[in-house]
Amino acid sequence: MIGVFDSGLGGLTVVKEILKNLPHYKIIYFGDTARTPYGTKSAETVTRYAIENTQFLLERGAKIIVVACHTVSSTAIPALKAKFFEVPFFEVVTPSMKRALKLTKNKKIGLIGTRTTVESNIYDKLFKEANSEIKLYSNPTPLLVPLIEEGWVNKPETRKIVKKYLISLKMKGIDTLILGCTHYPLIKKLIQEKAGKRIKLVDPSEEVAIEVKNFLENHGEFKEKLSFNTEQNLEIYVSDITIHFAKIAQLFLGRRVTLKKINWE
Amino acid sequence: MIGVFDSGLGGLTVVKEILKNLPHYKIIYFGDTARTPYGTKSAETVTRYAIENTQFLLERGAKIIVVACHTVSSTAIPALKAKFFEVPFFEVVTPSMKRALKLTKNKKIGLIGTRTTVESNIYDKLFKEANSEIKLYSNPTPLLVPLIEEGWVNKPETRKIVKKYLISLKMKGIDTLILGCTHYPLIKKLIQEKAGKRIKLVDPSEEVAIEVKNFLENHGEFKEKLSFNTEQNLEIYVSDITIHFAKIAQLFLGRRVTLKKINWE
Repeated sequence: MIGVFDSGLGGLTVVKEILKNLPHYKIIYFGDTARTPYGTKSAETVTRYAIENTQFLLERGAKIIVVACHTVSSTAIPALKAKFFEVPFFEVVTPSMKRALKLTKNKKIGLIGTRTTVESNIYDKLFKEANSEIKLYSNPTPLLVPLIEEGWVNKPETRKIVKKYLISLKMKGIDTLILGCTHYPLIKKLIQEKAGKRIKLVDPSEEVAIEVKNFLENHGEFKEKLSFNTEQNLEIYVSDITIHFAKIAQLFLGRRVTLKKINWE
Repeated sequence: MIGVFDSGLGGLTVVKEILKNLPHYKIIYFGDTARTPYGTKSAETVTRYAIENTQFLLERGAKIIVVACHTVSSTAIPALKAKFFEVPFFEVVTPSMKRALKLTKNKKIGLIGTRTTVESNIYDKLFKEANSEIKLYSNPTPLLVPLIEEGWVNKPETRKIVKKYLISLKMKGIDTLILGCTHYPLIKKLIQEKAGKRIKLVDPSEEVAIEVKNFLENHGEFKEKLSFNTEQNLEIYVSDITIHFAKIAQLFLGRRVTLKKINWE
């Protein structure tokens, strides 16, 4: 099974892309809804949660782990790889960085994300290693997650807040913008509109799905291990369940889903 | 010691009121910043967290417990009282309800709060028991917490969102409005402005502080037990710490504070 986890349900945007690219693989998803969100919490706490989430997915039979959460991808990957050294990990930062490098022409790249993601400076570090000419301009956009989870995806207030968040990045002259949070694909149209046609968007959920697909094509042993199942190819576990969470899950996945709550004491 | 806990740092508005009313008591505060917010989570999960938080405060020497969190006050009090039956608990719902009953003239009362608080229907139940003529109109206002925590307390976007949230309540003709979340006192002025002068606001942090004061005046044995300390009368513990959390704490308490992180594994 392909294991995917996120701080909450936003990671289902990644699942959606994986299902599109790899329809014949079984996916197990874990959303840590009892402790969501991660984006406002410390790297230390986020790392502890990420280790517990990975443990859960491995115990349930996952053979590779996709970290859908941008905050975890920005802060906890070295710790995860050290602890579970035999497991292939995929995260959303590196493929987004690579894609942005390919897209940019003027070498000015923008990043929006949660506070913890932006403050981790992971993108600055990766871009510096890849091409020292790249200039990265980032802006934490912490209100977008609650606005999207409220379903306010096209309300005038959301439109104004998106515009406000993008002004400083536009003024820097960026030509590429990384959507550094699983939630943002849901307002991609609005972000594109407010960013303007000249700016190309990088959607990490698309990039990581392609990364996983390429890996499986090049690693026959994993391709075989990951059980194929035509009947039901997605199981979703959460650490907390409410009616609202069920609605959000549907919003992100684009179809009805059943959430299974685990008892985590 | 007086133990106070909240899902995060918003409960410091309650601490501020207790310090004002009871300056000679030692207060121990716990903010569950590693799992904040509670307002979007299920009653079951919130109850589990509330029990753990209470346990922590009792182990540290608290003799009475003030539940500053509206979500916990709305969902977990019976479970807390059953588990810790020897401990006096204070919560923010009952005193707010009583105050609203005193203030209202037309018997139309409004409530704003998190989704879990509003959906708990605790206020409907209490008002029905107290006076069957009361009509309660409630509206979940989940975006206010993230807006306040961003420090956007007087931004045009926040003003618009507050206005939008209050329209339906105003149209019902309420003359009293309960601020059903520890964060809302920080935008009390804005809420008053958008609600209009005719509507009286109930601030739960003020009401619960008075309740605790009255209790101590009538219970000499507790008054003695709660250690008096002139040097340092407030200790603040959190389950996660970031620079941003330290800023929020200062915002709520109105002065500089030191947060101590506990290791909760």
